[in-house]
Amino acid sequence: MSEIEREVHAVAARAKDAAADLAPLSRAVKDAALLAVADTLVKRAEEITAANAEDVERAKADGTTPAMIDRLTLTPQRVEAIADAVREIVELPDPVGESVRGGVLPNGLDLRQIRVPLGVIGIIYEGRPNVTVDAAALCLKSGNAVLLRGSSSAYSSNSAIVAVLREALEGTGVPVDAVQLVPGRTRESATALMRARGLVDVLIPRGGKTLIQSVVRDSTVPVIETGEGLCHVYVDADADLDKAVAIATNAKAQRCSVCNAAETLLVHADVADAFLPRVLDSLAEAGVTVHGDERVRSVAAAHGSPATVVEATEEDWSTEYLSMDLAVRVVPTIDDALAHIRRYSTQHTEAIVTDSLRASRYFVSRVDSAAVMVNASTRFTDGGEFGFGAEIGISTQKLHARGPMGLTEMTSTKYVVTGDGHLK
Amino acid sequence: MSEIEREVHAVAARAKDAAADLAPLSRAVKDAALLAVADTLVKRAEEITAANAEDVERAKADGTTPAMIDRLTLTPQRVEAIADAVREIVELPDPVGESVRGGVLPNGLDLRQIRVPLGVIGIIYEGRPNVTVDAAALCLKSGNAVLLRGSSSAYSSNSAIVAVLREALEGTGVPVDAVQLVPGRTRESATALMRARGLVDVLIPRGGKTLIQSVVRDSTVPVIETGEGLCHVYVDADADLDKAVAIATNAKAQRCSVCNAAETLLVHADVADAFLPRVLDSLAEAGVTVHGDERVRSVAAAHGSPATVVEATEEDWSTEYLSMDLAVRVVPTIDDALAHIRRYSTQHTEAIVTDSLRASRYFVSRVDSAAVMVNASTRFTDGGEFGFGAEIGISTQKLHARGPMGLTEMTSTKYVVTGDGHLK
Repeated sequence: MSEIEREVHAVAARAKDAAADLAPLSRAVKDAALLAVADTLVKRAEEITAANAEDVERAKADGTTPAMIDRLTLTPQRVEAIADAVREIVELPDPVGESVRGGVLPNGLDLRQIRVPLGVIGIIYEGRPNVTVDAAALCLKSGNAVLLRGSSSAYSSNSAIVAVLREALEGTGVPVDAVQLVPGRTRESATALMRARGLVDVLIPRGGKTLIQSVVRDSTVPVIETGEGLCHVYVDADADLDKAVAIATNAKAQRCSVCNAAETLLVHADVADAFLPRVLDSLAEAGVTVHGDERVRSVAAAHGSPATVVEATEEDWSTEYLSMDLAVRVVPTIDDALAHIRRYSTQHTEAIVTDSLRASRYFVSRVDSAAVMVNASTRFTDGGEFGFGAEIGISTQKLHARGPMGLTEMTSTKYVVTGDGHLK
Repeated sequence: MSEIEREVHAVAARAKDAAADLAPLSRAVKDAALLAVADTLVKRAEEITAANAEDVERAKADGTTPAMIDRLTLTPQRVEAIADAVREIVELPDPVGESVRGGVLPNGLDLRQIRVPLGVIGIIYEGRPNVTVDAAALCLKSGNAVLLRGSSSAYSSNSAIVAVLREALEGTGVPVDAVQLVPGRTRESATALMRARGLVDVLIPRGGKTLIQSVVRDSTVPVIETGEGLCHVYVDADADLDKAVAIATNAKAQRCSVCNAAETLLVHADVADAFLPRVLDSLAEAGVTVHGDERVRSVAAAHGSPATVVEATEEDWSTEYLSMDLAVRVVPTIDDALAHIRRYSTQHTEAIVTDSLRASRYFVSRVDSAAVMVNASTRFTDGGEFGFGAEIGISTQKLHARGPMGLTEMTSTKYVVTGDGHLK
């Protein structure tokens, strides 16, 4: 075992001890600690922004794009907003202790399945330092210890933030080691975290496809995959075309850089001639480039569409653009739409636009994705929209949690069985 | 990719297709198919026992123990019993389609979270050929396609059984490829199954510790760990000692070879002198060898116990005996009992015997295991006992499912969101 591995495992072992002390704490203790965290963040904003300035300096020197610099930058106002997000988490119900099912067995044993924390959650993430606070607050509220492994570009910011968080926890009853930064900035320290099976209960990677795939590949700790979204909108033969135009445009263009934005539009052949000219106009107005199949391109040409329509290649069907690009294909039947989705979808969110109850039931029962929308934009797949409050990510896997992961999805359960000397 | 890898992946790809067709089937179709399976098993019992005889012959030639030969052997009566177990699964409710939560969101969107099958489940198992039928029936009932990878010692039996199962499915509406045997008997074919990520949704190993650990280590497909059980019984200072003697003896000796049998007995120092002589007598009568700490051995000597009491070493605290052996230790406080459990438990089942509500609440809130028993034998951790019907295994991990895994635990969920042209 290398030095950094030993260090990471020592940190994880402390997290495991902290998790044991954290699990039985009441909501009142956890909420008071979170309020202390929020207050301390605001009080120590200057220290945090000073550390952040180091990261920003380094990023500028490295030639980072202005957009990325902006994402990295913390201001006193942004620290206030981060603290406010913690206060919102305080308001959410505590899932720990919730009785999931229960009853009295025929032999008189009393059986209850109750929610318990997962234990130690590792978060490997890119990007903005606000994730550091957000993830820590969600983990604490759900009774979990957290190991934070942010990107090296935000190392100074994250170190300062975690120091503040730990200081805020002192004397609250929540163990200070419930929040720890994973030491080291190298790939090796991330790998050591992925191999800390038995110490870390689950790893949640938050970031781009490359990050997530590398964690899935290298981790021996169980991983929850999040975020990859190649979402489809299918416009059925029985669609209300006004709604279909609006939903397709909204799903793509309302915010194109997020995982629940649509990447491919599938159009039933029966409505292609009526629908395509209208949606092409709407997409053109929104500034979307269309990657169309032959039928789409010929309709666009015949219509004299103002839209930019380029030829769709095989690659387009499997690309999560995250940009103002949309692949558009005409399909002969709903089954062809379903086959296309089965082949190319990342199983995040698919939508159907239809007025046919039969088509809607058929689509819903056959699409195997975290969320299926009927006559609604794919953009609604979101913990906030679903009423779960803040989310730690959107799971695109089937085990444990699927779709937006709120506090409930950050728990496990245990069975409590009470008898009076029961023997088998 | 080697030839066998290609073959295994081709089988898994067919399973994935079958899973897509299986998912939307109604309970009526699945139940009718399971009844056909049960009937066909009985009709074709001769063929199955003939194939089984080949395995038994080979096992005898290999010098397999009589106990193992007995576990492997199928008789017409045993085939009848296997068919009856399938008929019992028919009676269980179908979890697919169950609404887990739902409601109308403030914006009028209708949100429902519904149960859906996991997809393709791989079962890697040792031992008795009845698992082949059992696992297949549970997977089909919960709408999942199954890939079966039994031990090479039962290859002929399993091949014959799977051929019968597939024949029984013909014309029922359930795709025949929903049940497949993984080709090959070598380690390489098992490894190919473990690497079929994207085709197989979850692997459930059923068998000994070595099998389970190797699957956990080598699989890139998500794994649900099952079965390892180093279970503790803690006799509190406030225990009813009659009940404590009975529970400790039952937990160890009622059936010692199973995962929910107790391996370690922890005794509060305050009751050690009163309790130990009695439990030693009871254990001696049941034929249990005690591995005791110093205090236990000195009480046994002073009492002139008829029990065989040997010295407990560090290794005893971490050994899942699965035999008529029990480690016994005296602890000064309940916190020492909890610390011992935290250090050595496999987080399967722990029991406390106490009449103190305070001690019971303290123990229950601090033990982090799949099941916590209060005044009941550890042997009750079982899908049948819990009222879940047949179980596919007992999960000792925290993600996805924890404790006995019935049909409900063999499902995922998806969100169905219905609107009327809703835009974000």
